[in-house]
Amino acid sequence: MIKKMDELIAHLKSSGFVFQGSEIYGGLANSWDYGPLGAQMKMNVKNLWWDFFVKFNPYNMGLDSSIILNNNVWKASGHIDGFNDPLIDCKNCKSRWRADKLIEEKYPDVNAGKMTNQEIEDFIKEKNITCPKCGKCDFTQIRNFGLMFKTNQGVIEDENSVVYLRPETAQGIFINFKNAQRALRKKLPFGIGQIGKSFRNEITPGNFIFRTREFEQMELEFFFNPNDGNDWFNYWINQVEKFLTEKIGINKENYRLRKHDKEELAHYSSQTTDVEFNFPFGWGELWGIADRGNFDLTQHAKHSGADLYYLDPVTNEKILPNVIEPSVGLERMMLAIMSQAYEVETLEDGTERVVMRLNKQIAPYLVAVMPLQKKIGDGAYKVYEDLLASGIAATYDETGNVGKRYRRQDAIGTPYVITYDFDSETDGMVTIRDRDTMAQERIKISDLNDYLINNQKK
Amino acid sequence: MIKKMDELIAHLKSSGFVFQGSEIYGGLANSWDYGPLGAQMKMNVKNLWWDFFVKFNPYNMGLDSSIILNNNVWKASGHIDGFNDPLIDCKNCKSRWRADKLIEEKYPDVNAGKMTNQEIEDFIKEKNITCPKCGKCDFTQIRNFGLMFKTNQGVIEDENSVVYLRPETAQGIFINFKNAQRALRKKLPFGIGQIGKSFRNEITPGNFIFRTREFEQMELEFFFNPNDGNDWFNYWINQVEKFLTEKIGINKENYRLRKHDKEELAHYSSQTTDVEFNFPFGWGELWGIADRGNFDLTQHAKHSGADLYYLDPVTNEKILPNVIEPSVGLERMMLAIMSQAYEVETLEDGTERVVMRLNKQIAPYLVAVMPLQKKIGDGAYKVYEDLLASGIAATYDETGNVGKRYRRQDAIGTPYVITYDFDSETDGMVTIRDRDTMAQERIKISDLNDYLINNQKK
Repeated sequence: MIKKMDELIAHLKSSGFVFQGSEIYGGLANSWDYGPLGAQMKMNVKNLWWDFFVKFNPYNMGLDSSIILNNNVWKASGHIDGFNDPLIDCKNCKSRWRADKLIEEKYPDVNAGKMTNQEIEDFIKEKNITCPKCGKCDFTQIRNFGLMFKTNQGVIEDENSVVYLRPETAQGIFINFKNAQRALRKKLPFGIGQIGKSFRNEITPGNFIFRTREFEQMELEFFFNPNDGNDWFNYWINQVEKFLTEKIGINKENYRLRKHDKEELAHYSSQTTDVEFNFPFGWGELWGIADRGNFDLTQHAKHSGADLYYLDPVTNEKILPNVIEPSVGLERMMLAIMSQAYEVETLEDGTERVVMRLNKQIAPYLVAVMPLQKKIGDGAYKVYEDLLASGIAATYDETGNVGKRYRRQDAIGTPYVITYDFDSETDGMVTIRDRDTMAQERIKISDLNDYLINNQKK
Repeated sequence: MIKKMDELIAHLKSSGFVFQGSEIYGGLANSWDYGPLGAQMKMNVKNLWWDFFVKFNPYNMGLDSSIILNNNVWKASGHIDGFNDPLIDCKNCKSRWRADKLIEEKYPDVNAGKMTNQEIEDFIKEKNITCPKCGKCDFTQIRNFGLMFKTNQGVIEDENSVVYLRPETAQGIFINFKNAQRALRKKLPFGIGQIGKSFRNEITPGNFIFRTREFEQMELEFFFNPNDGNDWFNYWINQVEKFLTEKIGINKENYRLRKHDKEELAHYSSQTTDVEFNFPFGWGELWGIADRGNFDLTQHAKHSGADLYYLDPVTNEKILPNVIEPSVGLERMMLAIMSQAYEVETLEDGTERVVMRLNKQIAPYLVAVMPLQKKIGDGAYKVYEDLLASGIAATYDETGNVGKRYRRQDAIGTPYVITYDFDSETDGMVTIRDRDTMAQERIKISDLNDYLINNQKK
C-alpha cells in the first residue's frame, strides 16, 4: 500500500496534478500546490458539491464569510480556550511530543483525548511511558498548544491587534444565520453551505494531502426545528452517500460508515458518523456528519447578546434550531478520488498502461484532440478550437506517436480522444476512442458536440 | 454619489448580498461577508473568469498554489524588503499617519510614493505639513510598516517559524512556472491563471468592498518569447475589455483605460495600463494589465538557484520569457457589477422600483417561480423543483401579493419570474415576465427549460 502511495504521488507530480509547495526553494513542510490538472479537478469537484448541496438544492443557500473574524467568535465557539494539543518536552533529549498520542500509541484502547492534563501526566508516570527518541521517562509538564494560526491586524503588533485565521468555516455560517435567514425569508428547515480555506497549525500533519495545515472545507449547516419529527441526521448521511456514489463516482466497497461511540463524541455533539474511505495508507475519515444540537447558536447568542431565535411564522413560537453538519475537506476528497481512479493495468498484449478512471464530470479534460500527423494539424486544431468555443473542456496533443498520446491521455484520465486523420480532411469524420473500453468509433465532426455533451451527463 | 453608495450598501445588506463581517459581535474593521445572493454571484463571476481565461482558452492553463509559501519566495519577489508603507506618529496627539498620503493630500501633483523616507521627512518639514488631527507639525521619524500578515507555523513561536500570508497570487504562479510548463509540455506563448485569497495589512482600507485586507484575486501570468513580434500587452488589454463588455456586461461608458506614466510605474514594469471603473465614489482601478518583463523569473532563478529557462524545442535556444499580467480583484469586480446594475427607476404610473440589471449569467437566480395563491402551491413547487433538477438556478417565492413579489425579484436582479395560476392546473401553461421590459407572455411548462437556457446564453 505504501508503495502505491509513492507511485501515486510521483504520477500526480509528473503529470501536473499536484506539485510540492514552494518546490524550487526546497519546499515548505506539508505544503502542496495544485498544477493545471489538479486545479481544474478541484474546480470541478467544488462546482459539483456546490450544485448538489447549495445551488440546485431546494432547502439550502450559500454563504461566503471571511477567513479573519472577530475574536469573540472563537471565544464563543470554544476554540480559543479548547482548541489545542497537549505538548510535552523530553527533559533528557529535548524532543517534543503530543502527550495524548504517546499514550495512545502504547495503549490503543485508551482515549487520552478525553483525559485532563493532570490525568495524562499521571498516566505517563504510572505506566512509565518513555520518550520514543531517547527511551527516558522524564518529561516537562504539559503545555497546551493552540491550533489556530495567530496574526496581527492593523499597525500595532500587540495583544489588542491579535486575530486568528479560521480553523473551520462553520462558525462563519453560525454568526450569519440570522442575517441570511431574514434576508431570504427562509423557513425551517433550511441549510447554509460554504466552501473556503481553513488553517490549523497541526503538530503532526502528513499523509500527502490528507492532513495539511492549509486546507479547503465544504461545509453545510442544516437548521431544523427540534420538534420536527424527520430524521435529518440520517437524511444527510444518505445525501452524502448519494453525492459520493452518483456524482463523484466513489465505489461502495471503498467507503464505510462509522458511528462515533460516546467516549469519542465531541462535547457539543449527541451523534456523529464518519464516512471513512479506504486510502492507500488505510481507512481514514473523509466526511463527518455531526449532530451539533443548538450548541453553536446558544454560545453565540450568549456571547454576542444577539437574538438568534427563529420566529415560527405559523405558531409564533421562538425556536433555537438544531443543526446537522456534513463537513468534508476538499483535498481529502481529491485524494480519495485520485487514489481510487489510479490504476496500473496489464493489457491483453502484455503491456502495461496507467489509467485514471476519473468520472466525466471530474476529469480535467473531457476530450483530447490529436492530428494523426503534424501536417494535418490545422484541421485538427480547428476541431479543438470549436470544442472549446462550445464549452467543452478539451486539450490538444500533437507530440509523439498516436499510441504514446493515447497512453498519456489515459494517464491523466481524459475520457475521450479524437484522432483527426487524412480522411477527415475529405469525409468530415474523426475517430473517437473511449478511455475505459479503448473501443474506437468513427463519427461526424458535426456530431461531436452532441456526442460529448450527452455522454458527459451519463 | 455618496448617497448612492450608502443606499447601495443598505440594499445589498437587506437583500442578502453583502453583510458586515462578524456583525453580531459589533463587526470587525473592514470585513464583509457575502450572503446567499452575493456568494452565488461570486461563484458565477469566478466561473466566468475561469472559463474565459483558463478552461476554454487555447493558450492558458490553471493553477492553485498555497496561501502560505516558503519565505524565500517573498525575499526574491521583494515583498519582505520593499512591500511596506511609511508611517509617522504625531508627537503631540499620538495619532498615526501614512507620511506619503499626508503629502499627497496637500499636494496632489506630488508623487510621494517615489520619494525616499528622508525626502518625505524633509518635504513635510519644509512645507510645514501639519497633523490633520491636532494641527501641529511635530512628527516622529518614518517607520516602514510591512503590509504582509505575519504568522508562525509549527510549535515554536520564534524568528525561524515566521511565515507570511501571500499578498498576491502572482508569485505562486512564477515559482510553479517550470513545473507546469514541463508537466503539460506547453510551448510559448502560454499563460497560467489562478483564483485565490490574498491578504494585505492595509493602513487605510475602505470604500466598502473596494479595498479590504482580505480579498480574492483573479490573476493571469502570460509568458512569451521576447523575440515574438506579437503585441501581447495590447492583446490582453483587448481580451480584458472583451470579457468586461461581453461576459460581465460592463457598459463602455462606465470604464476607461489609463496608461501609467513613467513616474508611476513599478520598478519591474515597463508599461502598465489600468482599467478604471466609474465607482459610486469616483473613478478607481478595477483591473491592472502590467508588462513585468522577466523580473520575477530572474529573481526566482537567482534566489532559488533553479533553472527557470524555457528550452525552445525548435531552435534549442534557452529563453527567459517575458510576462504580461492582467490582474483583477473579485470584490472590486463585484462592486463594479453591483453598482452599475443598481437602479431606482420611476415607472409610468409614478411609482418607483429598485432593479438590479445583472446579466443573466451573473444574477444569483435566473428565475423565480411563484404560485398566484398559496392553495395552488403544489403545482408551482413542482415547476420549481423540475427547473432545479434541470440545472436552472431557480428560487421559490410565495409570500405577499404578486406585485410585491415582482418588485422583490427585480430588486435582487432575477431576470425572469414565472407565475403559476389557476389556469396552469388545466392548460399546463404559465406566465413568464421579463425583469427589464416587464413584458409578460404565456408559455407551456414543457417549453420552460429550452426558453430559459436559450435566453441565458444571449
